[in-house]
Amino acid sequence: MTGDTRTEAVMPHPAWLPEAAFAPLGRRRVAVVGTGPVVGTVRAEVAAAVARHGGRLVDAVDASHGGNAAHETGGQGGADDVDLLLTVTPGGGDGAGVGTSAAEGFEVRRVGSTLVVDADGGPGLLYGLHHVVRHGEAAFAPEAPSATLLGRHEPAEPIRMLDHWDNLTVHPVMGQVERGYAGGSIFWSEGRLVEDLSRAREYARLLGSIGVNRVAVNNVNVGGVAARLLTDGLADVARLAEVFRPHGIRTHISVSFAAPMTVGGLPTSDPLDPDVERWWAQAAERVWARIPDFGGFVVKADSEGQPGPFAYGRDHADGANMLARAAAPHGGTIFWRAFVYNHKQDWRDRSTDRARAAYDHFAPLDGRFDENVVLQVKYGPLDFQTREAISPVIGAMPQTRVAVELQVTQEYTGQQKHVCYLGTQWSEILGFGLWGPGGPTLADVAAGRGPGERAAGLVAVSNVGDDEFWTGHPLAQANLYAFGRLAWDPTLDAPAVLDEWARLTFGEDPTVVATLHDLMDGSWRTYEDYTAPLGVGFMVSPARMHYGPDVDGYEYSPWGTYHFADRDGVGVDRTRATGTGYTGQYPEPWRDVYESLETCPDELTLFFHHVPYTHVLHDGVTVIQHIYDTHFRGLERVEEMVRTWEKLEGHVDGRVFTRVAERLAEQLRSAREWRDQINTYFWRKSGIPDAHGRTIY
Amino acid sequence: MTGDTRTEAVMPHPAWLPEAAFAPLGRRRVAVVGTGPVVGTVRAEVAAAVARHGGRLVDAVDASHGGNAAHETGGQGGADDVDLLLTVTPGGGDGAGVGTSAAEGFEVRRVGSTLVVDADGGPGLLYGLHHVVRHGEAAFAPEAPSATLLGRHEPAEPIRMLDHWDNLTVHPVMGQVERGYAGGSIFWSEGRLVEDLSRAREYARLLGSIGVNRVAVNNVNVGGVAARLLTDGLADVARLAEVFRPHGIRTHISVSFAAPMTVGGLPTSDPLDPDVERWWAQAAERVWARIPDFGGFVVKADSEGQPGPFAYGRDHADGANMLARAAAPHGGTIFWRAFVYNHKQDWRDRSTDRARAAYDHFAPLDGRFDENVVLQVKYGPLDFQTREAISPVIGAMPQTRVAVELQVTQEYTGQQKHVCYLGTQWSEILGFGLWGPGGPTLADVAAGRGPGERAAGLVAVSNVGDDEFWTGHPLAQANLYAFGRLAWDPTLDAPAVLDEWARLTFGEDPTVVATLHDLMDGSWRTYEDYTAPLGVGFMVSPARMHYGPDVDGYEYSPWGTYHFADRDGVGVDRTRATGTGYTGQYPEPWRDVYESLETCPDELTLFFHHVPYTHVLHDGVTVIQHIYDTHFRGLERVEEMVRTWEKLEGHVDGRVFTRVAERLAEQLRSAREWRDQINTYFWRKSGIPDAHGRTIY
Repeated sequence: MTGDTRTEAVMPHPAWLPEAAFAPLGRRRVAVVGTGPVVGTVRAEVAAAVARHGGRLVDAVDASHGGNAAHETGGQGGADDVDLLLTVTPGGGDGAGVGTSAAEGFEVRRVGSTLVVDADGGPGLLYGLHHVVRHGEAAFAPEAPSATLLGRHEPAEPIRMLDHWDNLTVHPVMGQVERGYAGGSIFWSEGRLVEDLSRAREYARLLGSIGVNRVAVNNVNVGGVAARLLTDGLADVARLAEVFRPHGIRTHISVSFAAPMTVGGLPTSDPLDPDVERWWAQAAERVWARIPDFGGFVVKADSEGQPGPFAYGRDHADGANMLARAAAPHGGTIFWRAFVYNHKQDWRDRSTDRARAAYDHFAPLDGRFDENVVLQVKYGPLDFQTREAISPVIGAMPQTRVAVELQVTQEYTGQQKHVCYLGTQWSEILGFGLWGPGGPTLADVAAGRGPGERAAGLVAVSNVGDDEFWTGHPLAQANLYAFGRLAWDPTLDAPAVLDEWARLTFGEDPTVVATLHDLMDGSWRTYEDYTAPLGVGFMVSPARMHYGPDVDGYEYSPWGTYHFADRDGVGVDRTRATGTGYTGQYPEPWRDVYESLETCPDELTLFFHHVPYTHVLHDGVTVIQHIYDTHFRGLERVEEMVRTWEKLEGHVDGRVFTRVAERLAEQLRSAREWRDQINTYFWRKSGIPDAHGRTIY
Repeated sequence: MTGDTRTEAVMPHPAWLPEAAFAPLGRRRVAVVGTGPVVGTVRAEVAAAVARHGGRLVDAVDASHGGNAAHETGGQGGADDVDLLLTVTPGGGDGAGVGTSAAEGFEVRRVGSTLVVDADGGPGLLYGLHHVVRHGEAAFAPEAPSATLLGRHEPAEPIRMLDHWDNLTVHPVMGQVERGYAGGSIFWSEGRLVEDLSRAREYARLLGSIGVNRVAVNNVNVGGVAARLLTDGLADVARLAEVFRPHGIRTHISVSFAAPMTVGGLPTSDPLDPDVERWWAQAAERVWARIPDFGGFVVKADSEGQPGPFAYGRDHADGANMLARAAAPHGGTIFWRAFVYNHKQDWRDRSTDRARAAYDHFAPLDGRFDENVVLQVKYGPLDFQTREAISPVIGAMPQTRVAVELQVTQEYTGQQKHVCYLGTQWSEILGFGLWGPGGPTLADVAAGRGPGERAAGLVAVSNVGDDEFWTGHPLAQANLYAFGRLAWDPTLDAPAVLDEWARLTFGEDPTVVATLHDLMDGSWRTYEDYTAPLGVGFMVSPARMHYGPDVDGYEYSPWGTYHFADRDGVGVDRTRATGTGYTGQYPEPWRDVYESLETCPDELTLFFHHVPYTHVLHDGVTVIQHIYDTHFRGLERVEEMVRTWEKLEGHVDGRVFTRVAERLAEQLRSAREWRDQINTYFWRKSGIPDAHGRTIY
């Protein structure tokens, strides 16, 4: 929280909430009307801002909105107009209503010279406050108000959730945060909640400011002591819930499907066993008795070795609904992950296709899930690749609440050593028309505006740790920011979101903002350029935890992620005609668009087809030449990025400058490895030289 | 020691010293004459054996050898002749003389009906005892004595040493024993010596019985607390020395070249700095004051990230001699490893050749090393591959004591999950004529019978851990046994050594002995068949710690171990004509034999040459067809091995049977992965089908 005394030697970076971002508001006379914990947060933010920047917090105003302040706190008294009135509509919710869309909307209008934010509830007031902060000085310019400032604002996605794959202890291989690239957990240390929660509070504040309303606080691969968060560790969860509650955020934990056995001592975890049902019902009662606004459970079942209902001959609806019945009386939600596939596949068997797995498992269950189950589906059928097709599960379950899972943490996109602004990727994903361009998008379906109208939202794996900059790479903060903003409004333009983030974080220096656009707007496509080509995916190092190139790294593995490159060609034949039949999981038009090389988008060529190196893409270049061209170009762009960043020396904080410069040096080294390993691999295999005679080793 | 009370739940397997092996001796009247700790061990062995099997230990005999026993212990008295007299030549050494060849020889003769072992010292008496044990009942058959029984026996190699890469604590990645495949350390636990030394004593007994006379007890990658063995951990080393001393074994530790800084607090480790010299001299004084027969230090310097003299612009002679001067006054030896190469090589640079590194670093230093420095050189220029050329360093340093390093632990030969009897490989290596067939062998040079006549010996990395069977795979005990026996006499026939081991371990059941030969005699070549072809090496998985196939696993790495396979061919051009020039490091005839494809042995074709897949080997088969043939054949042989072992159910101890059967199942699975990954890889690359139409995936 604002004003905390910290014990850390280095203050964590303020990310997009530096004091300067509150200056326009802090110079004003502001009134806050309402009660409850989230309104309390709004009031505290305003109080801190006006104390710093010379404005005034007016304690209450008359009922006619926009009138004179009746009482003021601090500073010289007076009867001036209020510049900003932040008010909750009488009867609007807070606290218990946290996380329900009903309390999250707000309206902004101008009444005389007063800007009025009228919120449906406490969370809406918090979101309205930050809406005003984001507009900066322009919010207070009555003559030329920003087009986005006024009017009614509501989140598109009811669920805007971050999952933390934080272990309670340090895993010897995975580290503390699984797929974390920013240090240890900000929540857990040596099996317990950390003593000093100031870091967690600051994080909650950051999330609240971008509209995130749910958080899961432990790894979905539930190991060791984490299983006990349901029992003797519950007090720790309750303390975290207290941290998140004032920011409009409900707390969740990941649980193991085997908990009735591992924690409860029962002989089975069969979801249809009455003792198992009773055990979960009692566990839920204990949790909600302690944390009345607890959000629910996240479950990874029958996936990558985690226990699940298959062991008892039950299906995933049986498993999820059993938990749902335990949570339902308390208003809880079960987040059931659809990431189920055979991770002990035989690479020799070309008929098995991991991409098919989630659809094959879940689509037949549509209509069988209880209303408080949310099926959490990764955006693509594989695993957060830089480029892959959209998961066909998302459009295939109209009678099921489907949340789309994104990965803010950069597992496959440079592990926060590479600049890779993911807003661009998510914007493209969220806007994908599941039944063709112009129809309902992926974001629509998640929001309950597709067929069936079952609303859920977006979930993402967080990218923060106890690193000074939260995210290892300071510029990776933009990804966390963009996730919140795009979950609020998936139609936002990715560069515009980047612009917001850049101005909040670094201020209005036009050199900085322009340079960040130069560096980041195209960074996802640059990353794609120098890594696995044309949607084929992976080619990452198993030994280095998916960091860096290893073209054959997963080619002969049991993980189901292959490229099938031989001396003649490369790619995965997923057609109905000659391949795994995966294209048949899509509705029209995609089932035919992807089926035919004539219509398949270039960037997914190798995701859907096995083609000769000499196959000519729609842009007129052969596959092999495309590989060479993109890899040479990708590295050139990284070289430009290094030079671009150098321009900012003296324009940004020295620690930020140095950290980004260090990471760019590593990105350059790594991108060169990617370029050369990919080019050499395909040159050795194809024997076809680069048309432009560039060096391939 | 015999008769110890153990605290472990499961008694460790007796390996080649089961009670039954002592039955022929134990049924006899035996006299032991001599004093000192090793003679005490001999007497205790005899006492235990006669107590079990009904013989007699006679306490002393008259000076005329073979006469009547003057006094007896235990059992009914009598004046019968002594069957076996074990005696140390008056004036023969023991204790302080441990580890010097002077005390290690013995002579066996028959005097009347008495078998007399007349040893030069305590260790010789121990070796003589086990010489008799190995001959079993035949030792006591005066009419038809074994051809190997009588006569003078001396070790060929003065140094017969085992190195333990045991960490004092469990390394998060490497485990406790680096490259160990048999559980935790038998010496160390949580940074200290284990409380219960019974396991270490049993190990010392096993080693003494096969003539091993030196042991280094900690990892040469000296990390963390291990550095303190020189200082506050010295008491632990002294306790281990007490364990090994009665078995004729001198104890050594591995030290860090940076110890003056990390332990001593000095600002430098420069070997020419007087403070550094003084610090090492004082450290040595402390060590030898505590352990007068301490062996010396093992050092890995400037290798794979370990500190060394290069940091100060000094060479390896400067570094080694500085330590040698500290150890010399105490009779200590410095084992200085020649495993120095650039492990941050650029794979793009085909001119750098890791195989060249040790020669390039060390050969110019010949003549500069002090007499108590032993240069410890791996048998091949790379790293313990299943097949590689012999290191040219071994013959290139006549003025230097060179010990040859072998790897008993099966890092690259199946990690003790695969049956791989290494006696065959070592026999071939040790008998290699460095200046052509018929001239001095590698074993000769190590023994001081080559040019320069500087004697050293053999060193090997141990394969034991706290596993019930010592070695994970029970049949891997044969490798430990064979190392000791071949270090004693490198001209021994590998199957004959296996025969000794099999009969000692499993008894005389002819089915068992014959079956073990079936399984093991050809197991090294079978392993070669289904793994990396024609001497090209590696192709192992970096992610799985070198276990299992990954053809490109090290192809784009900085480790300098490449195969350069492309669509046309494979192999490393190490010729002088067109390659790295490595062949020029060999003397005649090898420099020319290896240079030419006409004369290069088939099995090293890809070690020395890059050839088209269609290159025809001397046996008339193309390289690609050889790859297919050996890989299909290798798997077939493993399938036979599985069936072969099944014949022994009921013939061997049930636990041994089960463990071996489990490991063979894993070997079969793994060999199938090797076969298919290698065949598929080269088929995809070459496009050349198998001439016999077998399935390649």
